[in-house]
Amino acid sequence: MTFEEKTLSSEIIYKGSIINLRKDKVSVKNGTSFREIVEHGGGSVLAALDENNNMIMVKQFRKPLNRVVLEAPAGKIDPGEDPLETAMRELKEETGYTAAKVSFLTKIYPSVGYSEEALYLYLCQELSGGEPCFDENEALDIEKYSIDELYRMVMSGEINDAKTIIIVLFIRNLQLEGKLL
Amino acid sequence: MTFEEKTLSSEIIYKGSIINLRKDKVSVKNGTSFREIVEHGGGSVLAALDENNNMIMVKQFRKPLNRVVLEAPAGKIDPGEDPLETAMRELKEETGYTAAKVSFLTKIYPSVGYSEEALYLYLCQELSGGEPCFDENEALDIEKYSIDELYRMVMSGEINDAKTIIIVLFIRNLQLEGKLL
Repeated sequence: MTFEEKTLSSEIIYKGSIINLRKDKVSVKNGTSFREIVEHGGGSVLAALDENNNMIMVKQFRKPLNRVVLEAPAGKIDPGEDPLETAMRELKEETGYTAAKVSFLTKIYPSVGYSEEALYLYLCQELSGGEPCFDENEALDIEKYSIDELYRMVMSGEINDAKTIIIVLFIRNLQLEGKLL
Repeated sequence: MTFEEKTLSSEIIYKGSIINLRKDKVSVKNGTSFREIVEHGGGSVLAALDENNNMIMVKQFRKPLNRVVLEAPAGKIDPGEDPLETAMRELKEETGYTAAKVSFLTKIYPSVGYSEEALYLYLCQELSGGEPCFDENEALDIEKYSIDELYRMVMSGEINDAKTIIIVLFIRNLQLEGKLL
């Protein structure tokens, strides 16, 4: 039987720039336990499709993996910002494009075991171009891929960033179902 | 341009039971910066299909979301354990089943921005039943769903745990491609 864990006490371990860490003492079936929880403000992730249904992707060095990762454009939600605004802002910042048409796809939780992080996935269409204006610490390469190529890279394991796998598979399913205009 | 971030120094902030947290000082294009990195030993995730291709799912309370979440069975890799062993062990512990046939699907990184966590996804078939023997702190409900129903729940946003979305979409794609026997 599932059992609701009530918070008995909570300790802030670390307050950082991207994440905080806290430790909650909780009630469990047989007494009490501890839960280590990463606090994260969430983010938006974009499937930005050009007029030929090619998807704009970014490559960047990711320190936790110590390598360059191919990803869908994404960024953190600023305090008080609506996830849709984040999506439009990050599209502009990371790729230089603006989208005339934006549709919500789904909301995902990357790591339900220890993180509060939620990501909002959007489809961005009817793009008009421009130059990317990077954040100070961002260093990105921009590349375009067809949906078929990205699908092949997901199923073969070449793409292994979770949010990117999900947005690629969502877009391909919409395309197969004739819902991608 | 992507730029390799070299570690200049590293500080352990917290050593816990599920995760550690460290803060790395790194070289970036314009000088130095900090990266907050969650260390996590990784895990295995299972698509366990019965003889009718119904998938065994678990429901459990997840403190970071403060609610019950529907997920594919999964568990942490013990130190020195092979992810395939983890998959077999967790299948037995969480659902009571053993699988005569196990195939690797893919490896995913749930949160490349701040976490080292890697998850290994497996397809488990030719199940024989048994009784689940839960870990001390685990309190699970077990449910079976058809692949079609899970696909509908993913696309409608009812399922939003990232690893579960990915394993459901992988299994459905294999089924559509005739690769699921």
